[in-house]
Amino acid sequence: MAKKNEEFVTHIASRTEDFPQWYTDIILKSDMVDYSEVKGCMVIKPYGYAVWELIQSELDARFKATGHKNAYFPLFIPEHLLQKEKDHVEGFAPEVAWVTHGGEEELSERLCVRPTSETIICSMYSKWIQSYRDLPLLYNQWANVVRWEKNTRPFLRTSEFLWQEGHTAHATAEEAQEETERMLEVYREFMENVLAIPVICGRKSDKEKFAGAQATYTLEAMMQDGKALQMGTSHNLGDHFAKAYDITYLSREGRHEYCFTTSWGVSTRMIGGLIMTHGDDRGLMFPPRIAPVQLVILPIAQHKPGVLDKAYELKQQLIDAGIRVELDDSDQSAGWKFNQWEMKGVPVRLEVGPKDIENNQAVLVRRDNHEKLFVSMDGLAETLKSLFDTVQQDMYDRAKENRIAHTVVAHNMDELKDGVQSGFVKAMWCGERECEDRIKEATGATTRCMPFEQEELGSDTCVCCDKKAKAMTYFAKSY
Amino acid sequence: MAKKNEEFVTHIASRTEDFPQWYTDIILKSDMVDYSEVKGCMVIKPYGYAVWELIQSELDARFKATGHKNAYFPLFIPEHLLQKEKDHVEGFAPEVAWVTHGGEEELSERLCVRPTSETIICSMYSKWIQSYRDLPLLYNQWANVVRWEKNTRPFLRTSEFLWQEGHTAHATAEEAQEETERMLEVYREFMENVLAIPVICGRKSDKEKFAGAQATYTLEAMMQDGKALQMGTSHNLGDHFAKAYDITYLSREGRHEYCFTTSWGVSTRMIGGLIMTHGDDRGLMFPPRIAPVQLVILPIAQHKPGVLDKAYELKQQLIDAGIRVELDDSDQSAGWKFNQWEMKGVPVRLEVGPKDIENNQAVLVRRDNHEKLFVSMDGLAETLKSLFDTVQQDMYDRAKENRIAHTVVAHNMDELKDGVQSGFVKAMWCGERECEDRIKEATGATTRCMPFEQEELGSDTCVCCDKKAKAMTYFAKSY
Repeated sequence: MAKKNEEFVTHIASRTEDFPQWYTDIILKSDMVDYSEVKGCMVIKPYGYAVWELIQSELDARFKATGHKNAYFPLFIPEHLLQKEKDHVEGFAPEVAWVTHGGEEELSERLCVRPTSETIICSMYSKWIQSYRDLPLLYNQWANVVRWEKNTRPFLRTSEFLWQEGHTAHATAEEAQEETERMLEVYREFMENVLAIPVICGRKSDKEKFAGAQATYTLEAMMQDGKALQMGTSHNLGDHFAKAYDITYLSREGRHEYCFTTSWGVSTRMIGGLIMTHGDDRGLMFPPRIAPVQLVILPIAQHKPGVLDKAYELKQQLIDAGIRVELDDSDQSAGWKFNQWEMKGVPVRLEVGPKDIENNQAVLVRRDNHEKLFVSMDGLAETLKSLFDTVQQDMYDRAKENRIAHTVVAHNMDELKDGVQSGFVKAMWCGERECEDRIKEATGATTRCMPFEQEELGSDTCVCCDKKAKAMTYFAKSY
Repeated sequence: MAKKNEEFVTHIASRTEDFPQWYTDIILKSDMVDYSEVKGCMVIKPYGYAVWELIQSELDARFKATGHKNAYFPLFIPEHLLQKEKDHVEGFAPEVAWVTHGGEEELSERLCVRPTSETIICSMYSKWIQSYRDLPLLYNQWANVVRWEKNTRPFLRTSEFLWQEGHTAHATAEEAQEETERMLEVYREFMENVLAIPVICGRKSDKEKFAGAQATYTLEAMMQDGKALQMGTSHNLGDHFAKAYDITYLSREGRHEYCFTTSWGVSTRMIGGLIMTHGDDRGLMFPPRIAPVQLVILPIAQHKPGVLDKAYELKQQLIDAGIRVELDDSDQSAGWKFNQWEMKGVPVRLEVGPKDIENNQAVLVRRDNHEKLFVSMDGLAETLKSLFDTVQQDMYDRAKENRIAHTVVAHNMDELKDGVQSGFVKAMWCGERECEDRIKEATGATTRCMPFEQEELGSDTCVCCDKKAKAMTYFAKSY
């Protein structure tokens, strides 16, 4: 058995030795995803797609609870429509896919495959919004988008990906700002409580903000290699798009006013974040609330009378209690099954053999810390639900401890350069693009955000130019 | 009030006078859909998208209950991949959109935007399927697809539409046939029990079958103008795609064998079917099980003390009971609200005013037959659920009666030509393409299907050529 275990595990690269290879190994071996014949596009296999379905279900309920409705807008955007907002087209044009032919015919105007939908949606809002009674307009869409990427990695950066994009229109700048922050908070709560990923919330620099936005807010998570992953963004678009696409409303006072709009989105990229936050050298590790399979039942000595019957009975009982359960009754060895299901990141495994049945007990083994628990068959569903909560919290705490352990304060460029080798750096920044570019050049790190939670770092001069600083800023290398 | 009603209704064309205009009027006025700046592409507005969400939820549960899992495959298909199955590429190439540029660069190989995904999925199945243990492979995807159409109509035929496509691989021809029929039955049960649309199930002619299929099975519904709408299809692809894409497996006996595959799909087109089956001159009419709003509460004399409070209380109580409820407390007149919510097709409206509150009762009005019911506030949720079942059944029965009333038997070409002016025609057919083409030419009707339920029509010669008939066949004009 020992040899078998070893052989199995050696197929996965070590996180510390080769993090990118480790990532590739486990997403392929766990059947989350596969490469396709289409350059830069991934196939999301059922085990990976099940995570997306859970994400959709959790987020969709939160969007609806905050008054948003789903709609669907066209995949294609005529070129002239893309070009109306100057910054936006400059930002996106280099990375869009162009449709030039329909059937045998060349199109009179090229269509871009949506890289994001502000342009097409704003053109509709211009038509739909007449008066203050139509506001706020709070729509969301679940869709695929395409950005022509050179260097792709499944979930993290692919030419096509799945996401949701919220698009709202408001009567005032204040309401737009409130919405932008509200949805950032919806994302934060979801990421921390469901994905067990601690995030830093803050504002992006002008360089890093969304093309055409007035302000972009972000949620930044630390991966286990110390790099940052931008998990989602919420944009206050001011009246930029309203002016470009002529979205006006008649106010209560009878005046024609421009609207203020927002947009916000998260994507399948979060699945990459889940993997890189929680996985270990044995494979994936899912927090219970987002695990496609929360519990795997492994019958021990399954050929012995009564074992499989009991296992099937437990499975049904736990499914009825709302737990996502798999039962592995294949003819593989117990050791193989342990490894397989650990690799697939199932948070808890339940072992049940002849002796357990005799004693009316089951053995639970946690994926995250390998703790073994002997529990009564009575009240098993409740025991498990409570255990899931504990595992969920422990996984969050561990990720947060890791981030804290790999976050340093830098007072000069050497400290900054040193710090971003293994994690996040907090430093004071003057807010100027010139310093931002110099830091990128010298360290490979970018500004991740100016966090809402500003801290006193014992200095108020820029880490790069020594001029008066504008804000404490997070720097890190990033995906 | 009478005048107001009239004015309102005159905005919708009459079904009998101008069915296409009636359709356009009600989908736009009810806020289901809108036209976009993108030729042939629709915007699905929240009220229309809510129907799609309900369809997805109902069908997805049925797919999972029959062992299918969801996955996601790329939007783009490289040209060489599309061309591997000869009939398939001939069928689809004339109507695909081609991506030729990514950013500033011209692509070395054109990519087509998927019109359907057999080709890309089969190329992955070829990689994933090794042995009989991997079979059957039962995957589905929810996705958008693009077919470059000349004449488009929202929901019925658009260049982009939303659908699901199931793709399965099996060890034997028998299993593939079973799967094809199983999914057709899943569709039938859903269409009849949830959409309240009676369908005729049968096999398509070779001319009408899916490009590359061995056999296509269909579900055909009659719209109120007597035309047929193909509501969904299920294809037995035989080993055609397995051979073209090299999908083989090692059998238990150690032989390399080709797989047998199927595919099956339904789309947002069904929403068009819902509208044209049930709507009337007042607007939409949704069967309760698929209605985005099942009940609208209209407070009567809402300025009177206690009325709005009672209305809010009822709303919450009924939402808690799992009913989809809207409350209209706007300052529009009661007459306007009646018309508005009838137009939006809400199956039941509840009126509650001061007198009703005094008597502990509410007034229910059915959308389908305008019947007015005075019911007790006690047990209201149960009363409503039972009423929904009745309305659902009555709507199905009415649609079926309509189909029966507009279906005739034809023994000769004159009868056939006459019959398809107002509905379906059952006639004997020799099965030859020549007669099929001649019938199309002479009557404008196509073969809809050779139904599973064959009937004795008192003759066994072809309605067109008088040769021996192969099967009783449905003929109709169609969408």
